[in-house]
Amino acid sequence: MTTLERQAAAAVNPLLAAIADTGRDARRGGYTRPVYSSSELELREWFVAEASNRGLAVERDANGIIWAWWDLPTPAGAVTAGDPRAGALVTGSHLDSVPGGGPFDGPLGLASALAAFDVLAARESAGSLHRTRAFAIAVFPEEEGSAFGVACLGSRLLTGAITPARALALRDENGTSFAEASRRHGLDPDLMGRDETALSRIGQFVELHVEQGRGLNTEEFTDAAGRGPAVAVASSILGHGRWRLTFTGQGNHAGTTLMADRSDPMIAAASTVVAIRQIGAAQPGARATVGRLEPVPGGTNVIASRVDVWIDVRHQDDAVTAELVERIHGEAVHLAGVEGCAVTLSQGSLSATVTFDAELTRGLAASAQRTVAGAPALATGAGHDAGVLAAEVPTGMLFVRNPSGISHSPEEYVEDDDATAGTLALADALGDLL
Amino acid sequence: MTTLERQAAAAVNPLLAAIADTGRDARRGGYTRPVYSSSELELREWFVAEASNRGLAVERDANGIIWAWWDLPTPAGAVTAGDPRAGALVTGSHLDSVPGGGPFDGPLGLASALAAFDVLAARESAGSLHRTRAFAIAVFPEEEGSAFGVACLGSRLLTGAITPARALALRDENGTSFAEASRRHGLDPDLMGRDETALSRIGQFVELHVEQGRGLNTEEFTDAAGRGPAVAVASSILGHGRWRLTFTGQGNHAGTTLMADRSDPMIAAASTVVAIRQIGAAQPGARATVGRLEPVPGGTNVIASRVDVWIDVRHQDDAVTAELVERIHGEAVHLAGVEGCAVTLSQGSLSATVTFDAELTRGLAASAQRTVAGAPALATGAGHDAGVLAAEVPTGMLFVRNPSGISHSPEEYVEDDDATAGTLALADALGDLL
Repeated sequence: MTTLERQAAAAVNPLLAAIADTGRDARRGGYTRPVYSSSELELREWFVAEASNRGLAVERDANGIIWAWWDLPTPAGAVTAGDPRAGALVTGSHLDSVPGGGPFDGPLGLASALAAFDVLAARESAGSLHRTRAFAIAVFPEEEGSAFGVACLGSRLLTGAITPARALALRDENGTSFAEASRRHGLDPDLMGRDETALSRIGQFVELHVEQGRGLNTEEFTDAAGRGPAVAVASSILGHGRWRLTFTGQGNHAGTTLMADRSDPMIAAASTVVAIRQIGAAQPGARATVGRLEPVPGGTNVIASRVDVWIDVRHQDDAVTAELVERIHGEAVHLAGVEGCAVTLSQGSLSATVTFDAELTRGLAASAQRTVAGAPALATGAGHDAGVLAAEVPTGMLFVRNPSGISHSPEEYVEDDDATAGTLALADALGDLL
Repeated sequence: MTTLERQAAAAVNPLLAAIADTGRDARRGGYTRPVYSSSELELREWFVAEASNRGLAVERDANGIIWAWWDLPTPAGAVTAGDPRAGALVTGSHLDSVPGGGPFDGPLGLASALAAFDVLAARESAGSLHRTRAFAIAVFPEEEGSAFGVACLGSRLLTGAITPARALALRDENGTSFAEASRRHGLDPDLMGRDETALSRIGQFVELHVEQGRGLNTEEFTDAAGRGPAVAVASSILGHGRWRLTFTGQGNHAGTTLMADRSDPMIAAASTVVAIRQIGAAQPGARATVGRLEPVPGGTNVIASRVDVWIDVRHQDDAVTAELVERIHGEAVHLAGVEGCAVTLSQGSLSATVTFDAELTRGLAASAQRTVAGAPALATGAGHDAGVLAAEVPTGMLFVRNPSGISHSPEEYVEDDDATAGTLALADALGDLL
C-alpha cells in the first residue's frame, strides 16, 4: 500500500466530519436521523454530492435504495450484450440512525466506501487494477426501523423478505403510513417490492460497519496494552426479531379511582418487562430487551388505557428465539389477566441467524490481513442489511473496532486511525474481488 | 324556577356542542387540548366570544387567567370609592385537558357558568335579582399540568403557591420553557406571580365540575333504578402530589450487549412501577399511579440510557402521602442499585388535603337542594383550581353526575339533563350569593 493510498483512505475521517453536525439530538445526546427526517435527507444530499463529484452515476430505485455506479468503460463501437451492471460488486450501508445513536452506525460504511473508491480509482488509473465488472455503493433506507418499526426495510423490500402490502401499511409514530411517506418523497408505492433487476446486479455484497459490542475488546484479541485489532471479518449475525405487546385496560382518573377498582395496563406491562429480563437472562446466549414502552394517553394524573411494549429478542438458534417469545407471551397473558387487562402480541420483523458466505468471508479475511495483521472472525448480535441480502447473494462484512464497546448510544466511538485501517482493508478486499 | 330559566340553563348543552370537534385526538380517543395548543387557543376564542356577546368585560391578567366581568352598574354621577370589583363572586374552571381526556373536565364548568349568567341576567332584568357585588367567570390556564408538569399552574401563580422563578423554568416535552411559551403568547414573565389585586377581587369562588369517580353512583346515593342524583356539593379534595423518578443506566445496543453486562434503567423503572402499585394498595385510602413513563432514547433495538417515571400519589393525610413517597423512593434506590443504575427523585407539585369553606358549602348545599333533592356532600380525589384558591378565599364546588364513573378518558360522560340541572343549581347558588 502506498502513502498516497493511505492518504486517500484517511479521507474517511473528513468525510464523516462533514456530517458531524447533522441530526444532533440535544435532548438525548448523539444523533437522531430517522428515515425521511430532515437530517437523514441532508445526509442523502451529502452522499449524492460526494458520489457525483467522484463521477459515479447516482440513481434511486423503486424501493428507495440509492445506487452510485462505477460502470465498466464501454469500448467505442462495442455492442453491449445483456446488462453491463449484472453481477457487479456492491458495498454500502445506511444513513438513518436510532434515536440518540452514535455517528458511525451506518455512515462509517458509506464514508469508507467513498474513500475506498478513491483508492480503487487511483489504482485503475495507475494500471494496477483491472476490473472485470461494475462496482456500486448502495444506501439502504430505514435500516434501523426507527420510524416504521421494521429494521432493514429497504433491503427487505428489495429481496421480498417483506411484502409491499405489509411494508406500505406500516405507520410511524405520527400515524403516517410508509405508503404516504414514500409517495411524499417521490416514490410510487405500486412499484415497490422484490426487484429482480436490482438483485441480478449484486454479484457480491460487502458491508463495512462499526463493531457494536465488546467483541474486539475481549482478552482473546487484545494486545499487552489492551488494544484490540482495528478490523474484524464477520462470521455470522445472531437471529433476531421484534414483537409488540399491546396491553389494554381501563383508562381513568388517577385520583378518583380506588386502587382496588383498577385495571391498569401499566402494571401488567411493567411486570412483563421484569419477566422478560428474567426469561432472557435464564437462556444462555440470548438477548431480550425492552427499549421502547409507550403508555397511552401518557398523562401523569391518568391511569393508562393502553401500554405498548416493544420487544427485541435474539438467539443463535432460531427455534430458541421462537420459544423465548412464546414464553414471554404466555407470561404477559398471565400478568395481564391478574390485573384484569388484556394483551395481544404482534410480530414486527424476524430474521433468522445468518452465516455469511464462506468463500467470500475467507477472501475478505485474506485481504484484511494485508492491512490489519490478526484481523479475527467475529459473530455479531446486531442486524444489518448485509444479513438480509445474504439470503440472496454472497455477502460478507468487515467490522471496525469500537473502543467503547457501546453502540446505539452517543458513546459509540471509532478512532481515526482505525477508520483509515478499515477503509484500506475494504479497498483491498474490494480490489481483490473486482 | 321558570320554564324560561330552565331553557336558559339547558343552553349549556349547545354551548358544549359548539366545541365538540375542537382538539379531538384520533390516536388516543377523546380530546387532547394542552395549554397553548391550537385547540386550547381555539377554546379560549370560543369562551371570549361567548362572554363578549353577553356583554361581559373580558380581560387577561398577568398570570394568563382570563376574567369575564359582569360589573355592577355605576349610577350616573356616582363617586367610586375603592375597587368596584373588590370582593366579587367568581365562578370558573379550565379549558385545557389531559392527553386523550373527556369533553367535560373543565369546559363543563365554563359552559355552565355562561348559561348560569344568562339565568342571572334574566332575573336581574325581571327585578328578581338585586346584586350587591360584581360577578366574574374565570378561566385558569394549565389546570391539568399536561404541558409543563405542574397542575393548577395558573391558580398557583395567582396565589403564590408556586414561585414565578420555578414556574418560568418548567419545560414542556419539546424543551420549551414556560417563560418562552408565556412570552410567545403575549405575557410578560417579569409580571407573573402572586397578584394581590386579583385576589382581593375574589370574595368567594365556586367551581362546577364533572364528577370524576364513582362517588354519585354508589349504593348510598342511587335510587331503585340505580341512578344517582345529578349534583353533589364538594366537601374536600384529597391531598395529592406529583414526583418524578429519573433512572439512569448504560445505553447500549440490544443485540450486542450480553444480558450480564447490562445496567438497564428500564428494568429498574419497571420493578419500581410494580413496587409503587404494592405500596399504594397496602395503604388504606391511598392512590399511587404511574401513567407516564418515558425511556430515552426509546428505540426498540436500544437499551435505554434513562427512564423517567412520573408518580401521582394522593392521601387524605398529608403525612401519609409524604411517607408513601419516601417508601417509593427507598424502593427505587434499592431496585436501581440491583441493576447497577442510579435514580433521583424530584418533586413536581404538592397540594395538601383541602376542606372547603364550611359556611359556603352549607349555602351551596341549601341552594342545590332547590334543584336537586338529596344533592349529597362528596369528597373527591381529583385536584382543582378551587383547591388551590381555597387557601386564600372561601371556596366551594359543585359536581355533576358522571354515569361512567370514568374521567381523564374518552369515556367520561355527562347526560344533557344532568348538565342542565347542574347549571340551574349553579345559577341558584350564585344568585343566593350575589
